[in-house]
Amino acid sequence: MKYTTNKITVRYSETDQMQFVHHSNYLKYFELARLEWLTVLGVSYSEMEKKGILMPVVRVNLDFKTPLYFGDEFQVSVVLKDLPRATLVFDYEIINQHNQIICSGTTILAFLSPFTKRPMRCPEILLEKFS
Amino acid sequence: MKYTTNKITVRYSETDQMQFVHHSNYLKYFELARLEWLTVLGVSYSEMEKKGILMPVVRVNLDFKTPLYFGDEFQVSVVLKDLPRATLVFDYEIINQHNQIICSGTTILAFLSPFTKRPMRCPEILLEKFS
Amino acid sequence: MKYTTNKITVRYSETDQMQFVHHSNYLKYFELARLEWLTVLGVSYSEMEKKGILMPVVRVNLDFKTPLYFGDEFQVSVVLKDLPRATLVFDYEIINQHNQIICSGTTILAFLSPFTKRPMRCPEILLEKFS
Amino acid sequence: MKYTTNKITVRYSETDQMQFVHHSNYLKYFELARLEWLTVLGVSYSEMEKKGILMPVVRVNLDFKTPLYFGDEFQVSVVLKDLPRATLVFDYEIINQHNQIICSGTTILAFLSPFTKRPMRCPEILLEKFS
Repeated sequence: MKYTTNKITVRYSETDQMQFVHHSNYLKYFELARLEWLTVLGVSYSEMEKKGILMPVVRVNLDFKTPLYFGDEFQVSVVLKDLPRATLVFDYEIINQHNQIICSGTTILAFLSPFTKRPMRCPEILLEKFS
Repeated sequence: MKYTTNKITVRYSETDQMQFVHHSNYLKYFELARLEWLTVLGVSYSEMEKKGILMPVVRVNLDFKTPLYFGDEFQVSVVLKDLPRATLVFDYEIINQHNQIICSGTTILAFLSPFTKRPMRCPEILLEKFS
Repeated sequence: MKYTTNKITVRYSETDQMQFVHHSNYLKYFELARLEWLTVLGVSYSEMEKKGILMPVVRVNLDFKTPLYFGDEFQVSVVLKDLPRATLVFDYEIINQHNQIICSGTTILAFLSPFTKRPMRCPEILLEKFS
Repeated sequence: MKYTTNKITVRYSETDQMQFVHHSNYLKYFELARLEWLTVLGVSYSEMEKKGILMPVVRVNLDFKTPLYFGDEFQVSVVLKDLPRATLVFDYEIINQHNQIICSGTTILAFLSPFTKRPMRCPEILLEKFS
């Protein structure tokens, strides 16, 4: 299963004095893509949170090939690697307007109760949508 | 009443490609200073939030004189303008290691209930500390 | 003269623990709108920077009415207040998907040489486009 | 070789609506630690940049154990893994005020010329300081 965002334009505030996008922003782009995917699948992450299910990131890999610059237009692709279990594993790739691979990465997300601060099982709704 | 922070060093991630600090960060520096002041006065803002009192910013003025650069060391001074009422009015000034005024500003904060989403009166503890 | 952005979706990373968008992000939304406007007018801000013209923000006013939440869709409108001179004065308004006014504000921008660190006159291209 | 920062306090603006620090900020904390280390070693990263040597991050690993909350005080430890070559490999660990491991990670940095946009060799000054 795979999802690709529409074109997203790099914002000025996302650059640093190295003159391209600060590397921490790619984690925000990944997040944006996976949450947009949930919305498209009909899952409201806000609703999940209100019901007491948080999805924190527990592991990250990032591999940078070439930078994004202010004004660049990029797309993020997300792939679900395995069937959801105690965690969700997503792979990502960001591609710019010249079809260059900007970076690739993986995030592992867990399910957490904000009340008990303990891990939870994957909610039914996600099992359904992702299988 | 006035509070001045210790020296704070500009972080690389706070710059943008203009080669100095992005203007939105000054609002974060102001916030840092007023919350640190509360801590020094013995008020835990985290505890206030848990009891159901939020302090959102409702108005901002900012006046930039000269930029902060990566590695600069600055201090933020905060002054409480009036006795607390329905709002708190703070004035700020940021000064760098060369004693230059970087920017000045004002923020007005209100008290908000996260449950009713309605304005509240200033909590007793703040009235006490700030008078 | 006026410009209105397409719908922009609030990103998760733009919220804070108050459960809505951190107030510093509105300055990034304003910036995004005015730079997008330049692009639409055929002015490349990147090119301007390469030629040695920076446009730092020198003054800000912000007035918050009601918050933006994660997933909200908003539009930013920008109005140029006066003919460009030594500075550019822009007024902004942000409106959410329910047509509520979220915030309004003003930014004043100057023209700065990155080499001399001194103010410059408004470049011809902007005078042309904005009159 | 190892460096540990002084205590750093979590800023309000670093949290998100999950009520703890957004995961992208840990990359900023890592960056802060390694650049502070350079300063302590007598290397000015600003000077390096002016001479035309950038140090972009090309690979990241992050492992989150438990979150940082607003007001928490943490320290970042950085270790240089190997002698500097075409890249610098740093390992990090963040520990909070209760001596809990918050997260660990690795970043690989390369040397890049802003003019040619090409990789460079590790500058002499770093070879010296790190051996």
